Amino acid sequence: MEFTAFEIATFLNGEIIGDPTLKINNVSKIEEGKPGTLTFLANLKYDHFIYDTQASVVLVNESFIPEKEVKATIIKVKDAYSAMSSLLDLYVQSIPKKIGIESPNFVASSAKYGENVYLGAFCYLGENAQIGKNVKIYPHVWVGDGSIIGDNTIIFSGAKIYPETRIGKNCIIHAGAVIGSDGFGFAPQENGSYKKIHQIGNVVIEDDVEIGANTAIDCATMGSTMIKKGVKLDNLVQIAHNVVVGENTVMAAQTGIAGSTSIGRNCTFGGQAGATGHIKIGNNVTIAGKSGASNNVPDNKILMGEWAMDVSKYRRVYAVFRNLPELFMEVNHLKKELKKLNAE
Amino acid sequence: MEFTAFEIATFLNGEIIGDPTLKINNVSKIEEGKPGTLTFLANLKYDHFIYDTQASVVLVNESFIPEKEVKATIIKVKDAYSAMSSLLDLYVQSIPKKIGIESPNFVASSAKYGENVYLGAFCYLGENAQIGKNVKIYPHVWVGDGSIIGDNTIIFSGAKIYPETRIGKNCIIHAGAVIGSDGFGFAPQENGSYKKIHQIGNVVIEDDVEIGANTAIDCATMGSTMIKKGVKLDNLVQIAHNVVVGENTVMAAQTGIAGSTSIGRNCTFGGQAGATGHIKIGNNVTIAGKSGASNNVPDNKILMGEWAMDVSKYRRVYAVFRNLPELFMEVNHLKKELKKLNAE
Amino acid sequence: MEFTAFEIATFLNGEIIGDPTLKINNVSKIEEGKPGTLTFLANLKYDHFIYDTQASVVLVNESFIPEKEVKATIIKVKDAYSAMSSLLDLYVQSIPKKIGIESPNFVASSAKYGENVYLGAFCYLGENAQIGKNVKIYPHVWVGDGSIIGDNTIIFSGAKIYPETRIGKNCIIHAGAVIGSDGFGFAPQENGSYKKIHQIGNVVIEDDVEIGANTAIDCATMGSTMIKKGVKLDNLVQIAHNVVVGENTVMAAQTGIAGSTSIGRNCTFGGQAGATGHIKIGNNVTIAGKSGASNNVPDNKILMGEWAMDVSKYRRVYAVFRNLPELFMEVNHLKKELKKLNAE
Repeated sequence: MEFTAFEIATFLNGEIIGDPTLKINNVSKIEEGKPGTLTFLANLKYDHFIYDTQASVVLVNESFIPEKEVKATIIKVKDAYSAMSSLLDLYVQSIPKKIGIESPNFVASSAKYGENVYLGAFCYLGENAQIGKNVKIYPHVWVGDGSIIGDNTIIFSGAKIYPETRIGKNCIIHAGAVIGSDGFGFAPQENGSYKKIHQIGNVVIEDDVEIGANTAIDCATMGSTMIKKGVKLDNLVQIAHNVVVGENTVMAAQTGIAGSTSIGRNCTFGGQAGATGHIKIGNNVTIAGKSGASNNVPDNKILMGEWAMDVSKYRRVYAVFRNLPELFMEVNHLKKELKKLNAE
Repeated sequence: MEFTAFEIATFLNGEIIGDPTLKINNVSKIEEGKPGTLTFLANLKYDHFIYDTQASVVLVNESFIPEKEVKATIIKVKDAYSAMSSLLDLYVQSIPKKIGIESPNFVASSAKYGENVYLGAFCYLGENAQIGKNVKIYPHVWVGDGSIIGDNTIIFSGAKIYPETRIGKNCIIHAGAVIGSDGFGFAPQENGSYKKIHQIGNVVIEDDVEIGANTAIDCATMGSTMIKKGVKLDNLVQIAHNVVVGENTVMAAQTGIAGSTSIGRNCTFGGQAGATGHIKIGNNVTIAGKSGASNNVPDNKILMGEWAMDVSKYRRVYAVFRNLPELFMEVNHLKKELKKLNAE
Repeated sequence: MEFTAFEIATFLNGEIIGDPTLKINNVSKIEEGKPGTLTFLANLKYDHFIYDTQASVVLVNESFIPEKEVKATIIKVKDAYSAMSSLLDLYVQSIPKKIGIESPNFVASSAKYGENVYLGAFCYLGENAQIGKNVKIYPHVWVGDGSIIGDNTIIFSGAKIYPETRIGKNCIIHAGAVIGSDGFGFAPQENGSYKKIHQIGNVVIEDDVEIGANTAIDCATMGSTMIKKGVKLDNLVQIAHNVVVGENTVMAAQTGIAGSTSIGRNCTFGGQAGATGHIKIGNNVTIAGKSGASNNVPDNKILMGEWAMDVSKYRRVYAVFRNLPELFMEVNHLKKELKKLNAE
């Protein structure tokens, strides 16, 4: 594939500043730009790279005003990140897709699948499993009995789908993800041992969800653990039994949500964040990385801290915390002063 | 299946309040109760749901006294959670179990397995592997050479058992769990690189243990990493080489235990908790979620905090911590007052 | 195998104190030493075990001076840990290695592999995959299209290698590790949903790298996520897209590195540590366990704390933190004293 800067600007409905005839045959990161490549500038942190980048063409936000000369040809677009994303879509669409059925595989006699599927070698479709059309099931995927997977969904190698799971359309499940393992429920016995509470519920994943590599989502004790439309979970995330994750909520890697907690829509969890069990987190809530929600959280809050509190409060607390030695010395100084005064 | 409230009360040895002829054909969560279902109330947090639930029958603790009218039929039992658990057992026993040998599989010529096993397609039994009777090995499980698995144990899809592992009876290993990977041992070299210390030990898992999805347990450098009888590990837990986890100890998801640490029996680790290496944690110890034990811990302690301390101390520390800005202002105020006094 | 203490001392170039004719046929941990075994003492914490160990021979550092009588025969070497490591090497070399090709497997027609490989049953080599010589691919490994794996590398069961990954020579990838899953990149849309940013880069792993069980390494959005020569990652580690991990850097279990962060060489991350995205961490940096780097870090720093600061500062802060109740009472006391003075 080769495009001119002019063709790209036209496709993106952008304004070109520089040489429209430049030819582009690949993409690059701005700090590693090479001649013949296109890159983009969306994060202010990377501004300074634009003046030295060797990339031929740079997509920038229309609000971008260079502080000095830029050698590369610039294409101004409304939103450089989205524009780059559109170009990546174009590129990905041009790559041939896996299709067809590889052998050996295991397809139970009552399992069904739609047209244009990819079934990789060593994949397993259990009894009464139903796979929609255009679905891609990579090698070593296990689809347990009675699970249903919607159209266009991609399940990468080695993901494990326990029986009776529901997965919607246009989802992506990455390698090693486990959907529907038993919730962690045990009744303590008088002799100190634990008796397993059987977990007879399932997991329901709605449309347009992406689940990261080696993430684990437990089935409900009864009813369903719910991952709603548009949710994006990163790698190594833990979702416990009976959790509800609301629409378009996003969780960065290694986040963990304990049992029966309900999370609203459009929330954001930073990496290694957590939420305790049996709480209700509202809509549009942000929990910072490494922070933990331990109580109900109203809508629109931003929380931070090991036992998360409002971010503005946390910042004030933390500003004192990091200067605790000075505060301690100040108190000691006051103590001495007071002693002197008292002695007078 | 259909039961009357009377039949269930009789089975549970409970006292019925309401209509004994009501018919039950499913279970539900109390907040999602539907007519024809049975639910239970064990957690005080959910008390208020009992007055509005649409479930036909609710199991409650015998100590429960309603504050107003309950429409559902009530069955009073000694312990509602255990009673529900017994009913779930009954339900699970009624579901047909996987049995038999699917193809293709790989069973080494020297591997042995007992009667009534399930060997899923694409499972792998290495040389001299020994599988007890009634064991279920789901698809894509790898049982390395010389590993031994006790009767009635269930190993879900894609779990990986390294060579020479010992797993007891009545265990459940969830999908993607890795048992026996190399301990993380390297000797620093003068040029800054690291030389691998070969890990020649194994993992020993005793009876009645449950291991969560994508949990990793490393083999010992020498000797055995020990998971004792009745231990329950949640998902994404890390157990390093030469760790000992005592009987009936329970760890919530994403907990990590560093190398050579020894943990007593009946301990509880909250989610994302941790323990540093080479320490000894006693019996009946609780480490709160997100907290980390960095020193030896005596029996019966409850610890909290990033560098965990006694919970009562931590709570007092934290109460001041969250009001640090006020303390800071107080000290500044005192400083000014004192300055005034000194100026007089 | 059986060796005398004298043979071992000669092999290790060590000084023998005690009976050189003692026979050794196994190794043990010092606290579990049995007659006929060899053990070692490298960690000061374990010093006291040497006086009671039942092991026949103990390797010690040449600087070790016993405080009382040691019954075991001692071999003094320059570095007991390295010496033990050399003996473990010898032992491991004596164990027969997996070699040959098991069936069934899936090797695409354009895939190539070198001599002396082990291809376990149910392994998958995609189109144009290239596997070097002496490589071991255990059962259920997925090698995506176009991936290249260098000589002598070992990939344990169920590891998943996405297309176009590069893995160097002499690497070890443990079970369940996922290399090359999509980076977590989404563009927020006006309606609150997220649009996937296609991730078209790959992962490059250089020589002598070890990757732990169930660790996840995302591919780059564009370009490569880089794991440089000699890096050692423990289990359940998360490496996000476009991260660079420098030579000989070591990360303990459950560490997470967010997107586009660059880490220098010879760094050490404790367990459950983290680094936020888009920062630069220098060489020889240590981030303590459970700590998080949230800003650029210069060379040679040791950081500690949830929002990591210099370790010496953190220790001073923490010393006050853990005595906050006392500081609070002191301030209250000063307040009362001052009130009294003002009243006079």
